[in-house]
Amino acid sequence: MKRTTSPDVLLRIDRRGPLLRAQLERELRAAIRTGRLRHGMPLPSSRALAADLGVSRGLVVEAYEQLLAEGYIVARRGSATTVAARRIAPERAAVSETKVARPRFDFRPGLPDPSHFPRRAWLASLRRVLTSAPNSAFGYPDFRGTATVRTSLAEYLNRARGTAADASRIVLSTGFTQGFRLVCQALRARGARAVAFEDPSQVEQRAAIKAAGMKPIPVPVDRAGLIVEGLEKSRADAVLVTPAHQYPTGAALSPERRAALLAWAARRSAFVVEDDYDAEYRYDREPVGALQGVAPERVVYVGSASKTLAPTLRLGWLVPPADLSPAIAQAKRLEDMGSPGLEQLAFADFIAGGELDRHLRRMRAHYRAKRDVLVAALAARLPHVQVSGIAAGLHLMLELPAGSDEQAIVAAAAEHSVGVFSASRYCAKAHLSPALILGYGAIAAESIPAAVERLAAAIRG
Amino acid sequence: MKRTTSPDVLLRIDRRGPLLRAQLERELRAAIRTGRLRHGMPLPSSRALAADLGVSRGLVVEAYEQLLAEGYIVARRGSATTVAARRIAPERAAVSETKVARPRFDFRPGLPDPSHFPRRAWLASLRRVLTSAPNSAFGYPDFRGTATVRTSLAEYLNRARGTAADASRIVLSTGFTQGFRLVCQALRARGARAVAFEDPSQVEQRAAIKAAGMKPIPVPVDRAGLIVEGLEKSRADAVLVTPAHQYPTGAALSPERRAALLAWAARRSAFVVEDDYDAEYRYDREPVGALQGVAPERVVYVGSASKTLAPTLRLGWLVPPADLSPAIAQAKRLEDMGSPGLEQLAFADFIAGGELDRHLRRMRAHYRAKRDVLVAALAARLPHVQVSGIAAGLHLMLELPAGSDEQAIVAAAAEHSVGVFSASRYCAKAHLSPALILGYGAIAAESIPAAVERLAAAIRG
Repeated sequence: MKRTTSPDVLLRIDRRGPLLRAQLERELRAAIRTGRLRHGMPLPSSRALAADLGVSRGLVVEAYEQLLAEGYIVARRGSATTVAARRIAPERAAVSETKVARPRFDFRPGLPDPSHFPRRAWLASLRRVLTSAPNSAFGYPDFRGTATVRTSLAEYLNRARGTAADASRIVLSTGFTQGFRLVCQALRARGARAVAFEDPSQVEQRAAIKAAGMKPIPVPVDRAGLIVEGLEKSRADAVLVTPAHQYPTGAALSPERRAALLAWAARRSAFVVEDDYDAEYRYDREPVGALQGVAPERVVYVGSASKTLAPTLRLGWLVPPADLSPAIAQAKRLEDMGSPGLEQLAFADFIAGGELDRHLRRMRAHYRAKRDVLVAALAARLPHVQVSGIAAGLHLMLELPAGSDEQAIVAAAAEHSVGVFSASRYCAKAHLSPALILGYGAIAAESIPAAVERLAAAIRG
Repeated sequence: MKRTTSPDVLLRIDRRGPLLRAQLERELRAAIRTGRLRHGMPLPSSRALAADLGVSRGLVVEAYEQLLAEGYIVARRGSATTVAARRIAPERAAVSETKVARPRFDFRPGLPDPSHFPRRAWLASLRRVLTSAPNSAFGYPDFRGTATVRTSLAEYLNRARGTAADASRIVLSTGFTQGFRLVCQALRARGARAVAFEDPSQVEQRAAIKAAGMKPIPVPVDRAGLIVEGLEKSRADAVLVTPAHQYPTGAALSPERRAALLAWAARRSAFVVEDDYDAEYRYDREPVGALQGVAPERVVYVGSASKTLAPTLRLGWLVPPADLSPAIAQAKRLEDMGSPGLEQLAFADFIAGGELDRHLRRMRAHYRAKRDVLVAALAARLPHVQVSGIAAGLHLMLELPAGSDEQAIVAAAAEHSVGVFSASRYCAKAHLSPALILGYGAIAAESIPAAVERLAAAIRG
């Protein structure tokens, strides 16, 4: 595809003033000198620039000829006139990504496999949206989310996650981070003062509770998930949980605890914020439906496409009780006037066309195979070390021998270019036995045996 | 394209329990009864469901046959087995957009023409991104914005808006609303207590200043823009201005006021937040470069693609001084972990390929023509009424005869199905002579004469 360019250049001339041509030349020279017009950049056509400035085309042609003579610009037969070598260093304009030095073998948890993003299907959905959406789709989107995506999501979540989602209550977010912040704002606005969280868990969540002006209260977790008795004593107005696959221990909340948790919420008129983390990835256990489906008026369901598709999409959603939905929607409006609309329409198309189901089915097999490679490698190289949390999700927990020094092992692994996280970094008050968290979402299956060999050396060392 | 679907259904069976087939049938019936599996929806293939549940395919085939016999599902030769007519009303799942009753002739300001969104060029940019971006582009995006889009933006803004933007300081936002909130947070974190704003101006901006814990201070505006002497007395730590095309009066900040404003900022070590509103649309006056280009260490430049491309993209950017950039970037990270990445890459491609320049050149001609139609219609139908702010932007101000009742005219216009805004709705303490604000971005040129005829009747009535 040939791409012509007619760049827009800010030039100031006074049409009523004298010496129009000299003014124009001076402006062009200044633009080149300061780097606003950069080396190699094509100049606007004389016709376009003349129209833009409201002067005759002949005048622009003459000014260009002058600059050509002076060596500011170059013209080649059959191609656009461009800016010649720069005169002075332009403002520093290029920038590179912040390079975070990533280890060669990276077990960073919480990332899906970027090499398996369904590029073609996503592009097909975008194409359908851009060719068929009505003009009204290009205005401000509904700040709660477009009707199509909320309808598609309700249908998908009710079917695949066992929720009881009413599309009219759903609010789109840009991912878990924003979603949880909106929930905290709505809770605070209702007078909530304290929000409990699982200990261990993601550190950022405590900060979000605090930032909303509420007290974060740690409640310990064991192999059956959140210890609900701990919650009873806390006087919290809400609790954030990861029932499907506790982060980072990998526990699933047991049926007894689920019932106890919902009974607590009903008794205290408290809210359960359900982070449906990793729920789509389960390998050899029965699917666990969302808590929200059992108590839709006490549970705020929080989901995102960050693990199922890609974090870069920044697509998330909330299914709140009727009591909280308007406040959350209002917080979203004040925050950013709604999420980008075209991607919402693409996502709705992607779900409705069955592409999400197909992608998840494929990815489940892919991650299960990777997990099997990892578990086998760990069993072979570290036969005395226990792994847990492997029935679901994209990470597992490696329990180290009693008395191991987590930090020393993480550091030794890093020296072998293996990136692992210590379990204690997720703890508030909890004391876990020494353990490592290994994510296997993004690492290539082929690298796993070598990575585990190095990790084993670090643990033994 | 044939789109097969194999939907993911949450079904619970106990593989170690008895009567596996009966369990599965019971689950499927319940899913259909409650509407989780909806009328017309295809069932998963027996192979896929068997693999998913870890049971034999024969067992699934038998269960399907039973449900077929009972009338829950239907099978047609050569197509997928689907759910039969629903048994009971499913959860209310469909939702429609909130319908805000829009008048037939809508002069709502602040909207670009949605029928002119460059669908094909935008899709081409998305296609290039989705086919050529490296896998790493699908992880978490740089929370400040991807390097490509920050580099492209710096180049574009420096060239077309006369800024002195350093790409490494740019932070992407999801539009003006989020951008200004991030700036307010960064100002507050530095100890700012009061932020001045133009009176009249957008009402939401005052709320954002207040929400960040600072005092909003109104400063009046006249035909030369913000009255800087008013600012001198205010003790404000920062001021939000729209120098290119004041909203809503349409004034351009005069050269003297620009100099005075920057002198004030330098003297007080205060910050000027420059909302470069409507800057890309100027018709018959010289382009006015951004203030930021003159004082990059005292001005925070705020821009977005909402008026140049479409609000639904939620693409905005900040060019802050070195002093504020890290705090703004950090606020962005906490808020949403960064803006969606693929659209940023598409936007960078769109700029680099010259598409933004081409689009703006086309749209400038388009809006200028619409403005001319509107101004001519107003001159013909309301010869004694003054219009102002017409040299740029997507709206103008219609000054009503002294003593006119703005509210009565707005109401009468609405009865004629003409949507206009009164100038006083933008005022904090200011008293403007009666006036109406007419946006002409989104209204069709063909509708303008009839709309003005109706408006004239409302004003005379």
